[in-house]
Amino acid sequence: MIGLIPVLGVSGLGVVYAAYNFWKVKRLNEGTEEMADIANSIRIGALAFLYSEYKVLIKVVAVLTVLFGAFLSISSAISFLLGIVFSGAAGYVGMRMSTYANVRVTNTALKTNSIGKTLKVALRGGSVMGLCVSSFALLGLIIVFALFKDQIRILSAEKNWCGISFVPFGMTLSSYSLGCSVIALFNRVGGGIYTKAADMGADLVGKGEEGIGEDDYRNAAAIADSTGDNVGDTAGLGSDLLESYMGAIVSGIILAMHLFITYKAKGMPFSESLFEKMYLFPILVCGAGLLSCIIGLAYAFLKADGDNPHRELNVATWLSAGLTGVSAVVLSIVLFSGENFGELPFRLGVFSPCVAIIIGVVSGVAIGRAAEYYTSYDYRPTKKLAESAEEGAAVTIVQGLAVGMKSNLMPVVILGAGMLLSYAVLEFYGVAMAAVGMLSFVSATVSVDTYGPISDNAGGIAEMAHLNSFVRAITDRLDAEGNTTAAMGKGFAIGSAAYATVSLMISFMYTFTPVTEDIVFNLMNPLCLVGALVGGAITFYFSGLLMEAVSKAAQKMVDEVRRQFREIVGLREGVKGVKPDYKRCIEISSQGALSEMKLPVLIAILVPTISGFIMGPLFVAGILIGETLVAIFLAIFCGNAGGAWDNSKKAIEAKGLKGLPIHFAAIVGDTVGDPLKDTVGPSLDILIKIMATVSLIMVSIYSQYNLLDLISSLL
Amino acid sequence: MIGLIPVLGVSGLGVVYAAYNFWKVKRLNEGTEEMADIANSIRIGALAFLYSEYKVLIKVVAVLTVLFGAFLSISSAISFLLGIVFSGAAGYVGMRMSTYANVRVTNTALKTNSIGKTLKVALRGGSVMGLCVSSFALLGLIIVFALFKDQIRILSAEKNWCGISFVPFGMTLSSYSLGCSVIALFNRVGGGIYTKAADMGADLVGKGEEGIGEDDYRNAAAIADSTGDNVGDTAGLGSDLLESYMGAIVSGIILAMHLFITYKAKGMPFSESLFEKMYLFPILVCGAGLLSCIIGLAYAFLKADGDNPHRELNVATWLSAGLTGVSAVVLSIVLFSGENFGELPFRLGVFSPCVAIIIGVVSGVAIGRAAEYYTSYDYRPTKKLAESAEEGAAVTIVQGLAVGMKSNLMPVVILGAGMLLSYAVLEFYGVAMAAVGMLSFVSATVSVDTYGPISDNAGGIAEMAHLNSFVRAITDRLDAEGNTTAAMGKGFAIGSAAYATVSLMISFMYTFTPVTEDIVFNLMNPLCLVGALVGGAITFYFSGLLMEAVSKAAQKMVDEVRRQFREIVGLREGVKGVKPDYKRCIEISSQGALSEMKLPVLIAILVPTISGFIMGPLFVAGILIGETLVAIFLAIFCGNAGGAWDNSKKAIEAKGLKGLPIHFAAIVGDTVGDPLKDTVGPSLDILIKIMATVSLIMVSIYSQYNLLDLISSLL
Repeated sequence: MIGLIPVLGVSGLGVVYAAYNFWKVKRLNEGTEEMADIANSIRIGALAFLYSEYKVLIKVVAVLTVLFGAFLSISSAISFLLGIVFSGAAGYVGMRMSTYANVRVTNTALKTNSIGKTLKVALRGGSVMGLCVSSFALLGLIIVFALFKDQIRILSAEKNWCGISFVPFGMTLSSYSLGCSVIALFNRVGGGIYTKAADMGADLVGKGEEGIGEDDYRNAAAIADSTGDNVGDTAGLGSDLLESYMGAIVSGIILAMHLFITYKAKGMPFSESLFEKMYLFPILVCGAGLLSCIIGLAYAFLKADGDNPHRELNVATWLSAGLTGVSAVVLSIVLFSGENFGELPFRLGVFSPCVAIIIGVVSGVAIGRAAEYYTSYDYRPTKKLAESAEEGAAVTIVQGLAVGMKSNLMPVVILGAGMLLSYAVLEFYGVAMAAVGMLSFVSATVSVDTYGPISDNAGGIAEMAHLNSFVRAITDRLDAEGNTTAAMGKGFAIGSAAYATVSLMISFMYTFTPVTEDIVFNLMNPLCLVGALVGGAITFYFSGLLMEAVSKAAQKMVDEVRRQFREIVGLREGVKGVKPDYKRCIEISSQGALSEMKLPVLIAILVPTISGFIMGPLFVAGILIGETLVAIFLAIFCGNAGGAWDNSKKAIEAKGLKGLPIHFAAIVGDTVGDPLKDTVGPSLDILIKIMATVSLIMVSIYSQYNLLDLISSLL
Repeated sequence: MIGLIPVLGVSGLGVVYAAYNFWKVKRLNEGTEEMADIANSIRIGALAFLYSEYKVLIKVVAVLTVLFGAFLSISSAISFLLGIVFSGAAGYVGMRMSTYANVRVTNTALKTNSIGKTLKVALRGGSVMGLCVSSFALLGLIIVFALFKDQIRILSAEKNWCGISFVPFGMTLSSYSLGCSVIALFNRVGGGIYTKAADMGADLVGKGEEGIGEDDYRNAAAIADSTGDNVGDTAGLGSDLLESYMGAIVSGIILAMHLFITYKAKGMPFSESLFEKMYLFPILVCGAGLLSCIIGLAYAFLKADGDNPHRELNVATWLSAGLTGVSAVVLSIVLFSGENFGELPFRLGVFSPCVAIIIGVVSGVAIGRAAEYYTSYDYRPTKKLAESAEEGAAVTIVQGLAVGMKSNLMPVVILGAGMLLSYAVLEFYGVAMAAVGMLSFVSATVSVDTYGPISDNAGGIAEMAHLNSFVRAITDRLDAEGNTTAAMGKGFAIGSAAYATVSLMISFMYTFTPVTEDIVFNLMNPLCLVGALVGGAITFYFSGLLMEAVSKAAQKMVDEVRRQFREIVGLREGVKGVKPDYKRCIEISSQGALSEMKLPVLIAILVPTISGFIMGPLFVAGILIGETLVAIFLAIFCGNAGGAWDNSKKAIEAKGLKGLPIHFAAIVGDTVGDPLKDTVGPSLDILIKIMATVSLIMVSIYSQYNLLDLISSLL
């Protein structure tokens, strides 16, 4: 436990550095009064949505906390709350920063006309989210350890609490992780619906009907659109990656515990010191990763001179990743030297844990590259997609769907190879470490990922405030430069979700398999098989609900924007002083998101619980596997189809074909791709982990009490 | 074996009745010279494509036959060829009929102005395909039995040929089934690309750009479009259902054999007479089903008077289904009475087999109803989709994708419930019988399914030959009336594919599991798990290839149709005597289909084989499960999204909104849905069965010789 003190120190340092960056950005000038006004509207809209969303959230959290306290344990209830608070705070602080940073980026571009200087402001803004994600997550985890570390003793003393190989501390940790997941689910689903309803609404009328540009101030949905970037892309992304980060760490720790119990029960050697090192290792690697990211980011702020923003971002990311990798190797050697691995599958000795970490990083990068191949205009698929727009909207859609479907093969083969290799190195604990590896330097990737929407917002403000076009040119350039890192980030998100979910499923299986038996997940059992069918179908249903939610809210938005163009005299002509009613559009997005998010959120939490109480754990095991398989494919499909449409539209615009039929066809593609890539895809990554985590927490109850067993016992 | 003689008789009767109907239709008058000319062009185009396709096919068949003969057995090679010949012949005869029937339907409508009389001609034309499907399939099967029945003896004498529980007759039967599947794959993939390239090309320029109606003679792709209906919807559908039919029967027989071997090996009682009855039962039920369909169809031809075509079609279908159900009960009682079931899971005694059959029928109908709910304009989803077209193409696409995704839940829950129930009744043999049940009256469903494209074609001919609009009204009405049965047919296709594939997978697992052990499909084995990932990804890739193939060919078609409108003087204006060059468009579709179908076909056959030789049977087991799960969901998604777009467009047209923006948006939806529902969806049903069948045939080799085992043994 003493090993956690340096991690506590690093997390503290992370918080301090985030606060410093917050202050550095906030003290900058906002520019003209008009700019400040626009930024203010965006900020108010974003915060108002977050507050309304958190109001719904509080009810769900209250119910769950009471249930956890009553039926599971007080430690679960407290840990769950801690997860909610720390993850919620990270999202809040990071988003608050981005709503301050956007206008300051615009103003820096305006005042300095320097890419390098503007880049620094945007990246510093993004770094607040990046640093908060990992610092807050680790701080919360350390508190959970500090409060409930005695439960680890229970684990080694009573191996068979209530008849199954139940691990009290595992449940406590899962509850903390679930808290993080619930925030992520709310922010991704709610924020995703919000942002895409606004985006679609703005584009459909603005570009499609009125022929005005992106972010034109006459568009009533323009502010809602910019607000959406903060709500969906910043807060959503941050809490999403925090959730993945915690999921990876926690799945590794729980797996170590189950291994320990199982080995002990079978009378095989497994020293307590080795066990302690195995569960501390992922936390220490992440602590080292956070420190590496602080160094990487500091280097970027000190060194970046603006000649080549692409290089600066890459250096910052790779410096962080490289230092993390080196620390992982050092930690692996230092921690595990001299340990007797006995029959534990450390196939590469002391190097096993760090090799698994590195396999994770490499496969994550490779998945990101595959995504880039399918979505960047530098390569054939998106080029062909852009050409197909020549034949109209229908062919563009068909071709884009084809790209998305085809794009599954390469990343999944990489994922599979990574899984087999990390399994070969250290069995499923190796798979969990691969997930940890991908996310260990999450602060750097989230910083660059958040820098994107900040630059995007900055461009929107420049447009709405009628600034000189060079400002927009700078922000567009900055936005584009972040794309490679963003693609890599998506690879990490999907890859780590897959690996972490597999680890969670294994833990789930351990929980209701008697400790002396091998865990078997027999799909030839009809309950499992039908569960898998139902799980896959639920994933499609969940995705369909999200698509429909966006479509519904976007339709209302379209009607409202059209109405304003029709009814507000002088708006279309741009008469000075005539402005649309932005607030009404913000309300539409907000209400749409809040009312439509309920069912998907309930599905994620209730389906694995209710079906467990009715059909028992084997059926839930089936649900988890079916849902995970389908979600991985759908997420890749959605992300890549959406990305390809987006970039083919941008390429067509860059060629100066705006306003021609080919451009309209490309806009249809882009508009369809938006909810796929920004609402459905990211939500699926969370869905699989939240369902696995909920199941892991509840299985100890319904593996003993369920309707099917009751009926069988009566017959 | 004596039990097969009545089935032989019924099959012969089926062939005779098909020939009679062929003759009855062909002797009708073709109408005006112009009509005969158009019909002739369609016929020549369709046959030319079939010939070119079969030329490619012959090469594949030759290679496979030689390989089978050399590495498996002569009986496999011969049975495979029989499957090719009988299935190929059924497709050929049925399609030839439909190219004669189309113009005669037009002429009957023109001469009689009677719905009832026209219906009879169309249904009689369709019945040729329907009757051929089941008669030819059963005839081929009986020949396989007659030639190789001695192999069944081998099975009971040597239980453990070459170390694993290999069944020589099982391999022979699978090879016959594979022959049928290969024809289906070619016809569905090739025909699907052909028909949708022509359809999309014709619609995109005709409706989208020139604003002319469906089947306007000035559209250069009009004949190719009508040809496509015959190639894709008639030949494709017929061989597809023949393949499903045989897959269901064969999976049931093989499962019975494996049960027998396993019980014998474990020393549990299983009499030879019960075994013989279990493998004869599915064949007898299908024979009874064919006889029931002959009666049902004959009733329709004798009784139908045209007051209510909807009722006539329903009576024909339900009479066939009802008689089949009654025969199944009678057969079940007569066959299984007095047998000692020992420890065999006949949970409902002699009624077990027929209850499983009925569960299949009921769940198939229910799945069809669910599909109807999502795709018919009578219900909310398609109504809302039609409304969303008000907001333009992008929202229509998003909403349609949402409908398709959401539509997975209901049918999959029904499928799962059916699977659990049929398993409860008679374990996996019960699941196989449920598949047999769905397809036992396939002649009736295929007759009605084929009647649809014949009516569609008849309408096209009426349009192109400038006939009075009442003719088109009659054919449109007929076309629409078949939709309910067609929706049910789709439910049977998906449901039976799922059930049959599960049975085939179980047989696959039996084949390499030692007879004394329980079969276990452990997804916690990383090879299985990664296999499942790869299998799912391949399914998406395969679908993407098909979408892209259609998009590519359609783009060429669009360019050609545009070129003709541009270059042929007087074409657009409809100057008398000026006609487009139809032939060029037929060539484009044909070449597009032939060149693009190769990769998907190779994937279906080679992936399970090559990965088996590299990674071994567990990996292939994973591939099969991943692929099956994903294919079921994707097939439902594609079918229902496509159907909903199609019907929402029709509803908008029926409201007289043709030519308005809402109509254009609906056309984009319909055009996107076409390749999804008519190319990708149906091909997926075949993909899962063909991959399972290929694996089942090859596993006996690669379970002993594969690279992974070789490497492990060397290490």
